[in-house]
Amino acid sequence: MLKDWSKAKKPDQTEIDARLEHARMELSARQMAIKEKKLPVLVIFDGWGGAGKGSILGKVIKNLDPRFYKTETLSKPSEDELRRPFLYRYFVRIPEAGRFSFFDGSWMDEITKARLQGKTNDDEYRQQLTSIKRFERQLSDNGYLVIKFFFHISRSEQKKRLSALTDDRHTAWRVSKWDLWQNKHYDECVDVYDEYLELTNQFIAPWYFIDSGNRKWAELQITEILVKSIDIALQNTGRAAAILQNTFPLKQMPRLCDIDLNVSISDEDYARELKELQAELADLHNRIYHRKIPVVIAYEGWDAAGKGGNIKRLTSALDPRGFEVHPIASPEPAEKNRHYLWRFWKRLPKDGHIAIFDRTWYGRVMVERLEGFCSENDWQRAYNEINEFEKELVDWGAIIIKFWVQIDKDTQLARFTDRQNTPEKQWKITDEDWRNREKWDLYEDAVNEMIQRTSTEFAPWHILESNDKHYARIKALKTVIEAIRKR
Amino acid sequence: MLKDWSKAKKPDQTEIDARLEHARMELSARQMAIKEKKLPVLVIFDGWGGAGKGSILGKVIKNLDPRFYKTETLSKPSEDELRRPFLYRYFVRIPEAGRFSFFDGSWMDEITKARLQGKTNDDEYRQQLTSIKRFERQLSDNGYLVIKFFFHISRSEQKKRLSALTDDRHTAWRVSKWDLWQNKHYDECVDVYDEYLELTNQFIAPWYFIDSGNRKWAELQITEILVKSIDIALQNTGRAAAILQNTFPLKQMPRLCDIDLNVSISDEDYARELKELQAELADLHNRIYHRKIPVVIAYEGWDAAGKGGNIKRLTSALDPRGFEVHPIASPEPAEKNRHYLWRFWKRLPKDGHIAIFDRTWYGRVMVERLEGFCSENDWQRAYNEINEFEKELVDWGAIIIKFWVQIDKDTQLARFTDRQNTPEKQWKITDEDWRNREKWDLYEDAVNEMIQRTSTEFAPWHILESNDKHYARIKALKTVIEAIRKR
Repeated sequence: MLKDWSKAKKPDQTEIDARLEHARMELSARQMAIKEKKLPVLVIFDGWGGAGKGSILGKVIKNLDPRFYKTETLSKPSEDELRRPFLYRYFVRIPEAGRFSFFDGSWMDEITKARLQGKTNDDEYRQQLTSIKRFERQLSDNGYLVIKFFFHISRSEQKKRLSALTDDRHTAWRVSKWDLWQNKHYDECVDVYDEYLELTNQFIAPWYFIDSGNRKWAELQITEILVKSIDIALQNTGRAAAILQNTFPLKQMPRLCDIDLNVSISDEDYARELKELQAELADLHNRIYHRKIPVVIAYEGWDAAGKGGNIKRLTSALDPRGFEVHPIASPEPAEKNRHYLWRFWKRLPKDGHIAIFDRTWYGRVMVERLEGFCSENDWQRAYNEINEFEKELVDWGAIIIKFWVQIDKDTQLARFTDRQNTPEKQWKITDEDWRNREKWDLYEDAVNEMIQRTSTEFAPWHILESNDKHYARIKALKTVIEAIRKR
Repeated sequence: MLKDWSKAKKPDQTEIDARLEHARMELSARQMAIKEKKLPVLVIFDGWGGAGKGSILGKVIKNLDPRFYKTETLSKPSEDELRRPFLYRYFVRIPEAGRFSFFDGSWMDEITKARLQGKTNDDEYRQQLTSIKRFERQLSDNGYLVIKFFFHISRSEQKKRLSALTDDRHTAWRVSKWDLWQNKHYDECVDVYDEYLELTNQFIAPWYFIDSGNRKWAELQITEILVKSIDIALQNTGRAAAILQNTFPLKQMPRLCDIDLNVSISDEDYARELKELQAELADLHNRIYHRKIPVVIAYEGWDAAGKGGNIKRLTSALDPRGFEVHPIASPEPAEKNRHYLWRFWKRLPKDGHIAIFDRTWYGRVMVERLEGFCSENDWQRAYNEINEFEKELVDWGAIIIKFWVQIDKDTQLARFTDRQNTPEKQWKITDEDWRNREKWDLYEDAVNEMIQRTSTEFAPWHILESNDKHYARIKALKTVIEAIRKR
């Protein structure tokens, strides 16, 4: 995990400052919620010596009221603790309901150190890992939020910091022999840490890696993760199944109401660009076919937003032997009887092919959520399940492009009325469309939540402003072309 | 896991036959329940070539109605499957609600084979493991029961079987090149399998190792595990949190109503044995003190069953510096605000010491269950949580002895009445005792379930027949002495 860890991209200092101020306020506001909902929160700071665990912990708790947290520095077990089971000293320190406990160092220290010093053999080590996994799962099953941070710095950065600390007689005490040993045997430590992190990376208590090169940036990462994880856990209190913490990096996305729909294209430009872009796409289609790259294009959007026409402008550029359009309606009985993603797995393209979905797996968090076709727990869990599904496709090598086709409420009304009044369009409008329209605001909330929670860096949403359908079509073509070109 | 796997003890052939007949009937009876509750069940047969996966699978499904299951033989992926994501061929084969799917071979084959053949590098391998863990967890979260078997045989046994198959021209086709390769590179395979099994041993889909030396014994293990896991899953249907499958080996225990309480001891024998046994225990206490062995003794039983007097006969043999008795009443506020096992963790003995609990953590599945002090999900989960807790203590090196002090209902009434009528005993009887007595039958069901589900091989229950209190005291002393002696 450490070895293939891809750092989140560090924002510039101005953005860090602004987001940090906001995140601190948010965290502070969570204290009362935690107390009210009686949520116990256990936060673990692990990582390299000199990575700044202690000082960042100091900064994080500065924003909290001392009545709401405890900190525990877990260095060596005491004589008394050594006479009890390995987990004893950790179990007795778990937080009370409604409070934080921050552990500066955890069981990871004890286990990996013993491993590095050759004090535990393979069997003992595995047994400890099993204990830890059970311990963390029991906490989670019993309503605890467990958040685990690993502070990561490079060997040279660690060396630099340890030297700086040692050189100053006021801070020299903070450098232990163990820190120095770590730096000297950095690669060996990476191997052991990496294995430990992999083996204890549980869904109910995942690891977060903190890029610790910059203090404020480290504090920001931690504070934001705390806030998000607490929000998920607050939804879980009193509920049996834990909704998992999100560990996928997310893109910041606009809310629907902030999208400027006053964008358009002239008829002339439209005709010209359409022709050019379709030619380009046709060419690219050949290339992905030969390079065996699979492409998945997902369309969601309001009724009458223009999805169908938009898709048509894409497909008319494509060779019919290399693509398929899947209109998604209500599930068939055989589909209803299986995992809700099953029908989409079945429809995945072969490599080199393009699959276009007219409505998608996101039905779970829109129509199924709002019409009560699944339980709240089901759709809450679905954000993560869908992110995992799309990660699977990306890891396979697929290009995923997700479109949200956006119009405003007035435009929808105009188009509905037009459909109603035009005989050859009447099949396109049903009572259900009108009923859905009445729930516009509920849908808008659900769509906003969906876009925020499923715009992963590997599969973000693209908004198609479709009050002007021509504009949206050109933008769709450009987006698809760009995504393929990039590959 | 394979390396430190401790086989379940094989019963003799008569017992196997009897249990198998019963288990087959039980499994067959589960089919309708699965259908009614719409439970999808995915059963995976993995393991060594020649271990008999195919033929045992054939036997297991013989007891099932073909309408209720599908079998899938997952050998090499087809051309078409190779052009889709790695998980595709498995996902599209998941069972329908209300049915079994049996997989002869699974994703484990594909992943470990590629690993052994050097076709995947470390990164790809880890990515596949992550995919698998997510896949299995998503199935479980979405209401699927996933049961994974690994058929284990030794290298020499495998060799013998493969030769026998090859020598017979009717069966020679069943031996693949890969089977032979496996046997030749057995140790290498063990390493890779072991790592895979460890890394994919999830709480929601644990591995079961099947001792495959004997066919009927293998079928029995599988059928019994299927029945038990299905029963747990049926409790989970419609519930968000999965109650975990039990993976700890359990002892067969009698039901309370089958316990013969007509056992007694003469006053003379009692006086003599008590003296002798207490002397022996005193001696053993010194020895565990010096050898730093911790001992945990847990007492549960009916009101007025004689727990107090029983404990007194133990403690009067012990050096007060080396033991502690913990009477367990309702939890304090600080205890209520934490994981229910916290107050017991806090009271664990030091090594070399004895802790005696007068009432215990089993309150969770008795009084807390019956009085509604915790949710159904809480106490259902607790059987496994408690087994894990006790495993932790055993792994630490503790001796655990659990007593259920049993009397019949009439005896309780006689003792209650006596207490009521004897001024110096009146403090021992409260209205609550009478109220609990009214719930005798409910308690009896709960106790039976508790004893069945928490008599692990490492920490089984001992029944003390206590209609004759003297008999029970002598038996308790003998049990404790024997447990310590064995160590």
